[in-house]
Amino acid sequence: MEFKEELKKYQDLINEELKKYLRTGECPEKVLNNSMEYSLMAGGKRLRPILMVNVCQIFSGQYQNCLPFAVAMEMIHNFSLIHDDLPGIDNDDFRHGKQTNHKKFNEATAILAGDGLLNYAYQVIANDLIKETNLQLQKQKMSAFKELADATDRMIAGEYVDTEFEGKPISSDYLEYMHNNKTGALLKASARIGAIIANASEEDLNKITKYAEIIGLTFQIKDDILSVVGDEKILGKPVGNDEKRGKCTYVTKYGLERAQEMLDELTKEAIEITKTYNEKGAFLENLAIYIQTRNK
Amino acid sequence: MEFKEELKKYQDLINEELKKYLRTGECPEKVLNNSMEYSLMAGGKRLRPILMVNVCQIFSGQYQNCLPFAVAMEMIHNFSLIHDDLPGIDNDDFRHGKQTNHKKFNEATAILAGDGLLNYAYQVIANDLIKETNLQLQKQKMSAFKELADATDRMIAGEYVDTEFEGKPISSDYLEYMHNNKTGALLKASARIGAIIANASEEDLNKITKYAEIIGLTFQIKDDILSVVGDEKILGKPVGNDEKRGKCTYVTKYGLERAQEMLDELTKEAIEITKTYNEKGAFLENLAIYIQTRNK
Repeated sequence: MEFKEELKKYQDLINEELKKYLRTGECPEKVLNNSMEYSLMAGGKRLRPILMVNVCQIFSGQYQNCLPFAVAMEMIHNFSLIHDDLPGIDNDDFRHGKQTNHKKFNEATAILAGDGLLNYAYQVIANDLIKETNLQLQKQKMSAFKELADATDRMIAGEYVDTEFEGKPISSDYLEYMHNNKTGALLKASARIGAIIANASEEDLNKITKYAEIIGLTFQIKDDILSVVGDEKILGKPVGNDEKRGKCTYVTKYGLERAQEMLDELTKEAIEITKTYNEKGAFLENLAIYIQTRNK
Repeated sequence: MEFKEELKKYQDLINEELKKYLRTGECPEKVLNNSMEYSLMAGGKRLRPILMVNVCQIFSGQYQNCLPFAVAMEMIHNFSLIHDDLPGIDNDDFRHGKQTNHKKFNEATAILAGDGLLNYAYQVIANDLIKETNLQLQKQKMSAFKELADATDRMIAGEYVDTEFEGKPISSDYLEYMHNNKTGALLKASARIGAIIANASEEDLNKITKYAEIIGLTFQIKDDILSVVGDEKILGKPVGNDEKRGKCTYVTKYGLERAQEMLDELTKEAIEITKTYNEKGAFLENLAIYIQTRNK
């Protein structure tokens, strides 16, 4: 299968899975549910759950066991986007070419929709844990729950550091710390949860963690590059905002050329890891290249 | 022991327990950690964790097993206060006689501090679940985790309904729905988690659920009464705000006299339940009276 087809197949899988959790009934908080659905189904790439599902597949030949975690991960990712976009934080009007949650609904609804998605993620996990009758798998799921909660904590810390240092010059250590937490933590946890649910060996867990750390970094570097040279129409958001806000990014810190070199070198390193899994690693190899070469 | 002494003893217990979870080390997100601590230790009554701990004590003769859940519950309660106070929701400047989180820090920090506390609650639970070696107790803790996540979902829905209908006339059904969720859900879950961790019988679980539902209601009615006739200096927040905002409360809906009658009748009903536990129920009896007669 072509990579684009496979990616689409995975995206459809995640979207179908997410749809099962949408709350569509009549109730006093119907608009809140609509706003959670609006952001959750706004057309994200589903990178985190797809990474989780594929890693689980590599190490156990199936991905069904990790689907509730894939759903929870995507809910948490979308909670973070809604809150990042708020007037009190980034004050963004558009995302994925659509109005941000607080523009489409209002600020109070957006705050609570973010809260609601973060909490819903843990409801999904609590329900899955209780239903699990295989005690060994249940134990793995408890570890996965901890991975998710710890990574979300790191993501929130990274977002805070991003906010605090906006417009101030920061060291490359801080830039790395911020990204490792803000973008890296959830991507890393996605890969690790896939491996943990698959009961992968310690060695495989370490290798896949390294791969995820690298693509977390390349994802961010590419984001920073696209923020400068991307096409607004394709991106679905304004270009040049980082510089206007005085944001410290890989491009403002190292320049466009060096940032591109870093992106290419790191992608090569990620691919070397995937090669050790032969044809099973093909999707992850293509995913690394996709992150490197994407235009949105 | 006098009730006030016992309450103080419980409050000290919860405060000591919470202190164990404060993050005080040097790190780039230090100010975020400070802001989470600021709200968490701002002097709340600790009603929810105290209820949990006492119920656990009634049904199992000890409360140690439920302490991580007591901590998580108080974190979630404080997350909800921080977000409720935000400019985008209630826009309150003071709580417990101190500046609200976004006034003391700033809006971005307050949003992320709320997110951080909600997520930290689940980190505490994930860690506790993994460490639990008693499989029966671990199972009870998984149920408790579900209770907490479901109740938090209801709390967020209730807060949304409160926000959406502010300044609009609403039916008594809606008023009840809003409060059952916004204030009632976490109180009810606190009692139920205490009972679940204590492995209480179905009958006891139902009785204690009923008790908690009632005090959730009396707590809200008393809050509404204090919002009109309370002493600002004792309350630590302005009086009369509900009416200014056109909020629908038990007082604006039923009048002060009828609200007081409802409070007294419901308190009697709660006390009847506690009487069935003889001296073991004494604290819950006094707690119901305390909620009825408090001046802050």
